[in-house]
Amino acid sequence: VTEPIAGDVGDAARLSAAIAAIPPLDLDAREEAEAELDRKTKPRRSLGRLEHLAARLAAIRGQARPGPLEAAIVVAAADHGVAAEGVSAYPPEVTAQMVANFAGGGAAICVLAREANARLIVVDVGVREAVADPEVRDLRVGAGTANSAAGPAMSRGQALRALSAGIDLAGEIAADGVGAVGLGEMGIGNTTAASALTAALLEADPVAVTGPGTGLDAAGVARKVEVVRRILAANEPDRSDPLAALAAVGGFEIAFLAGLAIGAAGRRVMVLLDGFISAAAALAATRLAPLLPDRLVAAHLSPEPGHRLILDALGLEPLLDLELRLGEGTGAALALPLIRGAQAILEEMATFADAGVTDAGR
Amino acid sequence: VTEPIAGDVGDAARLSAAIAAIPPLDLDAREEAEAELDRKTKPRRSLGRLEHLAARLAAIRGQARPGPLEAAIVVAAADHGVAAEGVSAYPPEVTAQMVANFAGGGAAICVLAREANARLIVVDVGVREAVADPEVRDLRVGAGTANSAAGPAMSRGQALRALSAGIDLAGEIAADGVGAVGLGEMGIGNTTAASALTAALLEADPVAVTGPGTGLDAAGVARKVEVVRRILAANEPDRSDPLAALAAVGGFEIAFLAGLAIGAAGRRVMVLLDGFISAAAALAATRLAPLLPDRLVAAHLSPEPGHRLILDALGLEPLLDLELRLGEGTGAALALPLIRGAQAILEEMATFADAGVTDAGR
Repeated sequence: VTEPIAGDVGDAARLSAAIAAIPPLDLDAREEAEAELDRKTKPRRSLGRLEHLAARLAAIRGQARPGPLEAAIVVAAADHGVAAEGVSAYPPEVTAQMVANFAGGGAAICVLAREANARLIVVDVGVREAVADPEVRDLRVGAGTANSAAGPAMSRGQALRALSAGIDLAGEIAADGVGAVGLGEMGIGNTTAASALTAALLEADPVAVTGPGTGLDAAGVARKVEVVRRILAANEPDRSDPLAALAAVGGFEIAFLAGLAIGAAGRRVMVLLDGFISAAAALAATRLAPLLPDRLVAAHLSPEPGHRLILDALGLEPLLDLELRLGEGTGAALALPLIRGAQAILEEMATFADAGVTDAGR
Repeated sequence: VTEPIAGDVGDAARLSAAIAAIPPLDLDAREEAEAELDRKTKPRRSLGRLEHLAARLAAIRGQARPGPLEAAIVVAAADHGVAAEGVSAYPPEVTAQMVANFAGGGAAICVLAREANARLIVVDVGVREAVADPEVRDLRVGAGTANSAAGPAMSRGQALRALSAGIDLAGEIAADGVGAVGLGEMGIGNTTAASALTAALLEADPVAVTGPGTGLDAAGVARKVEVVRRILAANEPDRSDPLAALAAVGGFEIAFLAGLAIGAAGRRVMVLLDGFISAAAALAATRLAPLLPDRLVAAHLSPEPGHRLILDALGLEPLLDLELRLGEGTGAALALPLIRGAQAILEEMATFADAGVTDAGR
C-alpha cells in the first residue's frame, strides 16, 4: 500500500502538527515504574541501566506497565548524487541491490530482526531505480538526490515530503501497535551526507565527523573529508535553519528517518537509533522538535567519529559498543532484547512481599 | 534427580580427567566461519565483534555451522561462613529465600532466562538449610562453608567434591544438547569470597578487588576490605596451589562453577561468564586448566573493581557494560541474544553470490 504524498504546503503543516503533537514525558508513569522496580527481589538499582531503560520506556509509553512490546525496524533506502564523487568503497547500484536483498530476507537486518522478533519494514524513499517488489514500500521522493558537492541535494519541498512520509509511517505503525521503532538505512554515499549534516548542525570540523564508512582506507577518508568541505562550501548550511541544512546536504532517507522519529515521539513510541546516519537524522529532527531527545535510545556506538559527537550532543549513552559499522538498523535490532528484558523485569519479576524475601538492603 | 557424589580420590581423578579432556580450539572451523562471514552481503568485518563471536563459537563448538544454539543458565547457590563478619547488606537467610524464588520463577534470572529462551538450572551446592523443591538440584557439599576469616572455608576434599559436581552437570547438559552455558550464582557473602580468591590468585591488594557487592556504603566496603585481609592472613593462600586457595577462601558455589566451566570446555560448550563472582570462579578454573580461557566469553562488566582485573588477566573483553551488579546469571542471559545473533548471521545471511549484490568492498 502506497501512502498518498501531499504537496509542499500540506507537508509543512503536517510537520508543524507532528512537532506540536509530541506530549511531555509521563513523569508519573516513570515514578510508578521506579517504585515498582524498587519492590522487586533484588538489591535496589542492582540492574543498573536496565532499570533506567524500563523507567524510560514507561515515561515514553505513558504507562508504568505498557504490556508486551511490539517492535519494528524501518529500513529507509535512497541514493545520493554525491556518490559520484567517489566517497564510497561501493558503487551506487548496490543501494538497489541491497533493497532487493532486504526484500528477499537475506540481509543482516533481516536475520537480526527475525532474531529480535521485530517486524521489518523496507521503504524506498528514492533509490535511483525503483525496486518493484511487494515487500518494499514505495514512498519515493525522487530518483536519488542531486550532488550536494555542486549544490543542494534536494529542494526544501522534497525534504518536507520525505519528513512527511516518515511522520505518516510512524502514525501507521503506532496505530498497528508498535511501541518501539528502530531507525535503519541503506544508501551508498550516505555517511558523507551524514558527515556534512553533522558538521553543519554541530558546527564541527569535517575532519572530526568523517570516517571510513563501510570501508575506505586512509587516503579515501582524506578525499571524503575534502568532499564534505566542498559540500559545505557549496551550500553554506546554517544550524539556525535545520530544515534548509537537511535539504541542502542530507538525503531522502535521512529526512524520512527524521520524520519517522518525530512522528513516533508524537505517538508515544520509543525511537531506537542505530548508527551514525540514523543519529544524524535524529540530530536534525531534534533541532526541529526540541521535545524529541528524551524519546530516543542509542542502541550502539559505531566507530564513525561523528557518532559519539552526536550522542554527546543529544545526551545519549549507547547500550552496546560492538564496533558495528553496517547500518541497516542492525545495532537497533541487537539492542531490542535489552529493552524487552528491561520491560520483563518491570512486569514479571516477583516483589519482596510476593516472594517472602527479606528486604534488608538499601 | 540427585547426582551420586564420589569420594575424594574419585573427585581428584575426575578433575584431572576433565582437564585433560579439553580439546584444542578448532582452528579449521574458525577459518571456515571467517571465510563464510566474508562472503555475506555486508562490507567485510562490518559487524565487528559480532563476527568475532560467531567465529569463536565455531572454534569452540568444532563446527563452522553448529546449528541452533541451545543455551542454559546454571545458578549455583551456597552459603558462606564469612557472612557472620557482617560483609553483606543482606542476612544469610536470604540465600535460601532466593533459591525458593528461583524455583518459583519470580527472580530476575527467571525472567531474563525466559526472555533469552535459555533453560534455567538451579543448584543447591550448600545453602545453610536445604531448600526442598523439585525445581532445585540437590548437589550439596555441606551446610554452608566455615568462616574463612578464622580458617579454611572448606577442606580440599569438599572443594574437589564441588568441582566434580560441576563437571558432572556440564557433562549432563552437554549430552542434552546445550551449546552455551551461563554461570550464575547466589550466596550472601560471596563477593567477599570472590575478592579474597582474586586477591590470592592475582596477588592483588584487597582494596583493588573489594567493592560494595549488592549495596554496602563506603564504611561497609572499608570493613569488608579488612575482612578480606583477615581471610588472607588466616589462610595464606598461594597462587601456586589454586585448588588449595579455592578451598581456603572460596565457596561451594564458586568451586562448583569452576568445575562447570572445566566440564563445559571439555564438551565443546561455550562458557558465558556473568559478574565478578563467576569471573573469580573462572579465574580459579583457568589456573587448573590452562586451555580454558579461550572457551570463555565475558557477558558483561560489573562495577565491582575486581571484575575488570580478572577479565584483563584472562584477556577477555566484556560484551555489555550496563552497571549490572545482581549476579544470578542475569548478565549472561542478557548477552545470549548477541551470541544467537552472531550465529544467525553466520548461518542465515545471504552471500554476495546468492543475492546478486556487487562485492566491490574490501
